[in-house]
Amino acid sequence: MITLILAESSLELVPPDLARHQSVLSHAQRLGRDASEILLDNSWHFAAMKGLRNEIKRGRPDLVHHSMLEAVSTPLYRRDALDLLVHTVQDKVIRLGRQVRVPRSYHRFAGLVEKLYREGRVSAGDVLLEMSDMTFPEILDEINPPTVVGLSSRGTPSSYAKVAAGLPDGACVVIGGFQKGGFSEKTTKRLDSVCSVDDGPLEGHVVVSRMLYEYEKTIFM
Amino acid sequence: MITLILAESSLELVPPDLARHQSVLSHAQRLGRDASEILLDNSWHFAAMKGLRNEIKRGRPDLVHHSMLEAVSTPLYRRDALDLLVHTVQDKVIRLGRQVRVPRSYHRFAGLVEKLYREGRVSAGDVLLEMSDMTFPEILDEINPPTVVGLSSRGTPSSYAKVAAGLPDGACVVIGGFQKGGFSEKTTKRLDSVCSVDDGPLEGHVVVSRMLYEYEKTIFM
Repeated sequence: MITLILAESSLELVPPDLARHQSVLSHAQRLGRDASEILLDNSWHFAAMKGLRNEIKRGRPDLVHHSMLEAVSTPLYRRDALDLLVHTVQDKVIRLGRQVRVPRSYHRFAGLVEKLYREGRVSAGDVLLEMSDMTFPEILDEINPPTVVGLSSRGTPSSYAKVAAGLPDGACVVIGGFQKGGFSEKTTKRLDSVCSVDDGPLEGHVVVSRMLYEYEKTIFM
Repeated sequence: MITLILAESSLELVPPDLARHQSVLSHAQRLGRDASEILLDNSWHFAAMKGLRNEIKRGRPDLVHHSMLEAVSTPLYRRDALDLLVHTVQDKVIRLGRQVRVPRSYHRFAGLVEKLYREGRVSAGDVLLEMSDMTFPEILDEINPPTVVGLSSRGTPSSYAKVAAGLPDGACVVIGGFQKGGFSEKTTKRLDSVCSVDDGPLEGHVVVSRMLYEYEKTIFM
């Protein structure tokens, strides 16, 4: 059993200062929704997002969707040997129950997450997704894993298989839920080690998939 | 170098008989598009699709999107050691040039594929995606690979690593681009072997990711 944390994930609702921007308003109107209730999405709100603080880690719900899907589609998760937590760049955390079916269609995923922001918890099948306010250090204080390994292209050269072989039961693996850049200092401080598992920077979902596959091998095969 | 074919992929435009169904019309209207120009999508057109012939392999562009993204996000593809072909259940084939950036956002992906249906070729960056009419056997006649390996939960028990180790240069790997069910007889006839690489049925994108990763190991590591 391990815990995967997608850290500093670029998932949030449209912030109040951007809710009146034309690109946001017209997208919200198209969806028949209030601008303050929809996910910030760079592919629709690019014009509104120009110059936003920490822009590089914001408004990419598509990336978070891909990484979450990757994780919950593994035999590891289906056999209850993986806990998945999504920490956002705004210090929210989404906890997934067991056997959650993350919607494959993006618009359904967005609807689910928007509901989660409104209501704090939603059922997806028999189980729940819950959202609460929590910083990355607070999450680690709560789950108290024996070791915390971050994966980053800025880390010490290693490989998926080597990292997997070194994970004790209960370990926590941390992968960025953002497009570019490294972990913040606040996150980095809580990592016991940072490993680079590939030659170049890769999409988060690729790293999630390969890491979980190699860990599966160590426990199922 | 290998070729990956996503076979019988559930990707198509709304067929003419369904274009006047209420669920399709209201979705098309929301997009500001003509119903005949949008992708058939079970998550929006479920009511219209009831009883459609071969329903199980139709209207899941989200799955095709995930599998394509998985393939083009690998170092294998980025280093020009992978050709990707998407064969659809309606016998269209999409060829991707080198270094194509498949859009991460679903709505951009859908827009790109819809344009491809209208125009037959589209540029994405410096390179092209092209669509033509071609059956699965015709694709194989054209590329003439030394061996064709299908992956299916109905195949002979094997593993990703074993399949990868047995792939000669130029080999073709075939993975279903649909949600459920096996390859059709027409496809199966052209497979030299069919291997089952996991204990249970898995999402196509998971199989794509793991298979390409193991093949990468045989050539890059």
